[in-house]
Amino acid sequence: MRTVFWENNQVKMIDQRQLPHAFVVNAYDDYRAVADAIKTMVIRGAPAIGAAAAFGMALAALQSRATDRQTLLDDLDGASKILAASRPTAVNLFWALERMWRAATDERLQAADDVRAALVAEAQRLADEDVAINRRMAEHGATLIRDGDTILHHCNTGALAAVDWGTALGVVFMAHEQGKRVHVLVDETRPRLQGAALTCWELMQRSIPMTLIADNAAGYFLQAGKVNLVLVGADRVAANGDTANKIGTYKLAVVAKENGVPFYPTVPTSTVDLSLPSGSEIPIEMRDAREVTHIRGQMIAPAGVAVANPAFDVTPNRYLSGIITEEGIVRAPFERGLKEAVEKARARVRTFMETPE
Amino acid sequence: MRTVFWENNQVKMIDQRQLPHAFVVNAYDDYRAVADAIKTMVIRGAPAIGAAAAFGMALAALQSRATDRQTLLDDLDGASKILAASRPTAVNLFWALERMWRAATDERLQAADDVRAALVAEAQRLADEDVAINRRMAEHGATLIRDGDTILHHCNTGALAAVDWGTALGVVFMAHEQGKRVHVLVDETRPRLQGAALTCWELMQRSIPMTLIADNAAGYFLQAGKVNLVLVGADRVAANGDTANKIGTYKLAVVAKENGVPFYPTVPTSTVDLSLPSGSEIPIEMRDAREVTHIRGQMIAPAGVAVANPAFDVTPNRYLSGIITEEGIVRAPFERGLKEAVEKARARVRTFMETPE
Repeated sequence: MRTVFWENNQVKMIDQRQLPHAFVVNAYDDYRAVADAIKTMVIRGAPAIGAAAAFGMALAALQSRATDRQTLLDDLDGASKILAASRPTAVNLFWALERMWRAATDERLQAADDVRAALVAEAQRLADEDVAINRRMAEHGATLIRDGDTILHHCNTGALAAVDWGTALGVVFMAHEQGKRVHVLVDETRPRLQGAALTCWELMQRSIPMTLIADNAAGYFLQAGKVNLVLVGADRVAANGDTANKIGTYKLAVVAKENGVPFYPTVPTSTVDLSLPSGSEIPIEMRDAREVTHIRGQMIAPAGVAVANPAFDVTPNRYLSGIITEEGIVRAPFERGLKEAVEKARARVRTFMETPE
Repeated sequence: MRTVFWENNQVKMIDQRQLPHAFVVNAYDDYRAVADAIKTMVIRGAPAIGAAAAFGMALAALQSRATDRQTLLDDLDGASKILAASRPTAVNLFWALERMWRAATDERLQAADDVRAALVAEAQRLADEDVAINRRMAEHGATLIRDGDTILHHCNTGALAAVDWGTALGVVFMAHEQGKRVHVLVDETRPRLQGAALTCWELMQRSIPMTLIADNAAGYFLQAGKVNLVLVGADRVAANGDTANKIGTYKLAVVAKENGVPFYPTVPTSTVDLSLPSGSEIPIEMRDAREVTHIRGQMIAPAGVAVANPAFDVTPNRYLSGIITEEGIVRAPFERGLKEAVEKARARVRTFMETPE
């Protein structure tokens, strides 16, 4: 089952807040509820957020009572703004909304119902492409993994972070499928514990050997020479390769480099934001204090405590050994390599879109 | 109230597992229960563990039915072994047991009851000295803090980690008492959350401005230039300055150095182990998986997950700006400075012990 999918004119999502304790699929027939699901992290992970937003736009098209193209486009513009306001850091959200907008405003579509049909088809195409892209990324990334390697991983980047398969964990899945023996050290990833809850669950489902650790223990294992490779995802990569990812990634990258351990973000080109020259321009979401003060409803700090809860940090490009994309592994200088990868990927999508099925 | 104290021939301790939700004082009349309290972290923090072990020995002396010196010493030897097996990393435990053994075997004491009285007095003296030592450390350390500084802190090193006052947090308390405006960024300190539960509680009780963060967020604030100084405690410092402290300290030290932020462990000389040339010889305790998989009784990972839970890591001396001790701030080369500090402190204790009260 996919993390997010379209069925009976509804957007359906695995409710990731309930894993690993319960496997629940939510159904949405209002794009505003989809925006809320993104905000409250029913669904998370940059590629999954992008697909959810695309399906949200398809839903908005069906919800609109417009009978003419322009009224529908006005409604879609409003929906796009609401979806865009759900989370600020993962650029896939804005990338997907822009792509849906291009599909909606295709001048060949003059009837409102044609626009509706085009948006449902485009969201589905974006989701299908995501899975194909992840498999291509995984094949490139798996060349970095040797038989017997231990891979340290932060947050969750598996099937649950994408439409299916995954980004950084997708690389691990591919190596495993290729018969390489791998072991994954799983950062629990406070505050929301995506590593403990989601990554452990995905790895255990695939019977891939793994060990859960507190984020604080990652340095212990890096220093001890027990880690061969660090793989993470990303929420936004600037033109120079600076990488915004789940809070804690920066610390991990610095300590990996200090110990000579290769460190690679694994990102579809839809996560690359060529409009931002460097990471300092990436907006960082500050989330609710309760994510830090409460764990599964249990309070862990004194009442009334002051909290700061940045959800992401930026790892400067100098800490990256490379960036794994669906167009290959990009290495420094990242400006050139990322631009080339994005252009190649765009050309591939154009070809795909121009080829009648 | 002190964290650990002697009252009515019992050892009493604040039960730190219940803070900040409940303030409970446990009373022990069996040294084996004291060993268990150390093991299960009713009491923690290197200096507090040392004092608890000393009081445990006093209790063992009272518990023994021996009527002659040698039988009592045999019983004490057994008790010492049981207390020594409670936790492996904090050297204060072994330091305190050795000191109690020296007091017990003082050849001037020939009657069993004289040995008993000497042990109760020695434990009390060790506890009183701990408080005095902490204040001296705090005065040295506070010279590093300027008005308006933000101090990043890992784990708990306040009054609860010692007999009273504290080590690294004691430095902050002193600066605050001196009228300097300080702000503390509190690492929550997974897995056991001593920062969230204990450090927040101590700072809030003293009305010192503070902000709780997930350990993963420390890099974000260091990178953003929001941190002026990092202060931590230590569980064992090797002769060359390599410092074992709460898991996560190593990562923090590396990232502090990378950002040019001064990093100081604050340690009484009783935490310095001159018998170990370097940190690689320090034994690191591996604790129960449940500390990672469960938080306040709530399971956060799939059932049956594999876990590794090292309780400490070792920060190599090259990441330290200095080590704050009761004899002053020791700087590189640490071998010489630590040896001098330990010798000065020993001379001070000798003088203290030889001076009739």
